[in-house]
Amino acid sequence: MTGMLTIAGLGPGDAALITPEVAPYVARVAAREGLVLHASDNRQELLRAAEAMRLAAAGRRVVVVSSGDPGVFAMASAVFEALEASPQWQGLIIRVLPGVTAMLAAAARAGAPLGHDFCAINLSDNLKPWPLIEKRLRLAAEADFAIALYNPRSASRPEGFARALEVLNEAGCGDRITIFAHAVTTADERIDALPLRDARPDMADMRTLVIVGNSTTRRAGRWIYAPRRAS
Amino acid sequence: MTGMLTIAGLGPGDAALITPEVAPYVARVAAREGLVLHASDNRQELLRAAEAMRLAAAGRRVVVVSSGDPGVFAMASAVFEALEASPQWQGLIIRVLPGVTAMLAAAARAGAPLGHDFCAINLSDNLKPWPLIEKRLRLAAEADFAIALYNPRSASRPEGFARALEVLNEAGCGDRITIFAHAVTTADERIDALPLRDARPDMADMRTLVIVGNSTTRRAGRWIYAPRRAS
Repeated sequence: MTGMLTIAGLGPGDAALITPEVAPYVARVAAREGLVLHASDNRQELLRAAEAMRLAAAGRRVVVVSSGDPGVFAMASAVFEALEASPQWQGLIIRVLPGVTAMLAAAARAGAPLGHDFCAINLSDNLKPWPLIEKRLRLAAEADFAIALYNPRSASRPEGFARALEVLNEAGCGDRITIFAHAVTTADERIDALPLRDARPDMADMRTLVIVGNSTTRRAGRWIYAPRRAS
Repeated sequence: MTGMLTIAGLGPGDAALITPEVAPYVARVAAREGLVLHASDNRQELLRAAEAMRLAAAGRRVVVVSSGDPGVFAMASAVFEALEASPQWQGLIIRVLPGVTAMLAAAARAGAPLGHDFCAINLSDNLKPWPLIEKRLRLAAEADFAIALYNPRSASRPEGFARALEVLNEAGCGDRITIFAHAVTTADERIDALPLRDARPDMADMRTLVIVGNSTTRRAGRWIYAPRRAS
């Protein structure tokens, strides 16, 4: 078995944020002789992972790419899930190449809203029950974490973000500065910030990352940051 | 005012993980004519930030570097804190250049322990009271987040990690797979994993990032991952 499976993170969009470790794989995604692109639906992650592993086990050098970091709400978990289900593939050489995940790029553009303790919650994942998401939002508010919300307006759960805003408002987060980072680091980038109570569901779309500040998150000029000090 | 302040993240250690956006600044850190290095103690973040801003306001092109991502428990928050305290500097051009933060690199080496909802808690920061950290650990356990612990054995709070392990054990996390990622992506890298109840404080040092899995985190061969599904 000479195949290898590489799971690579492409970063948030700008080529200047693709690590040198990953960059060669991106260059190779351009069509060329001997390269086969296996496109698949984003919702079919497990099938895609299993197919990648099957090709690698057959001796191919396979690359599975994700935007952002492959380990954060992306393909890496699906690959290992497929691996666990198929012990005959556990000798495969696998490498995970990290990337700049969306919340880091969004935070950098806004200032430093993740400079103090924080959490990241995926609103899109239809593999977890919605009450669990609400529970996590309430506990995150109580813990006074800054909260990064991935996939706020996913196709599979478009109504979730409106409810998430309600839950956080009910949990007393109405004053918290909330950042909508749209298509961050791309030509379409747009960063908006406002108190949570004024946030509307339609401010987020499929390319938006939302960061809800903690109770001490504040502005310094045009920047938004979480102070290092907490009480 | 022609100065500029750049806050750049160097990633976890390996040069292959320094983004192309940041790489030119790293090359410039080598001594050369016209370059002044202002070294400062890690605990003097605010003084360092103010000094960087003063130099930029005087027309210099100043770079503040942090390992990992500058916005995650690093220099960016201190810079904006200094900026807020000095309104006369709020016209300065400031850029934050994100990087691969330690938990992403550690997760990639271990598998995909951050593939489901997670949080990041800084155990070192002596600017927050310890009871707040304990509260966050308990709530994070209740939320069933994977938990990335930064600076588990800091000089300023060496006893904190032992207590953090106690708190998580008391919160019912004894079975959770816990990853100790030491000096990740460097020549000294070492990844260990074991149930939380068997973890000992001395397994972490100043170069260790700890990830406590969630209740469903599991192994697939030599890999550790958080399944996408939760109930």
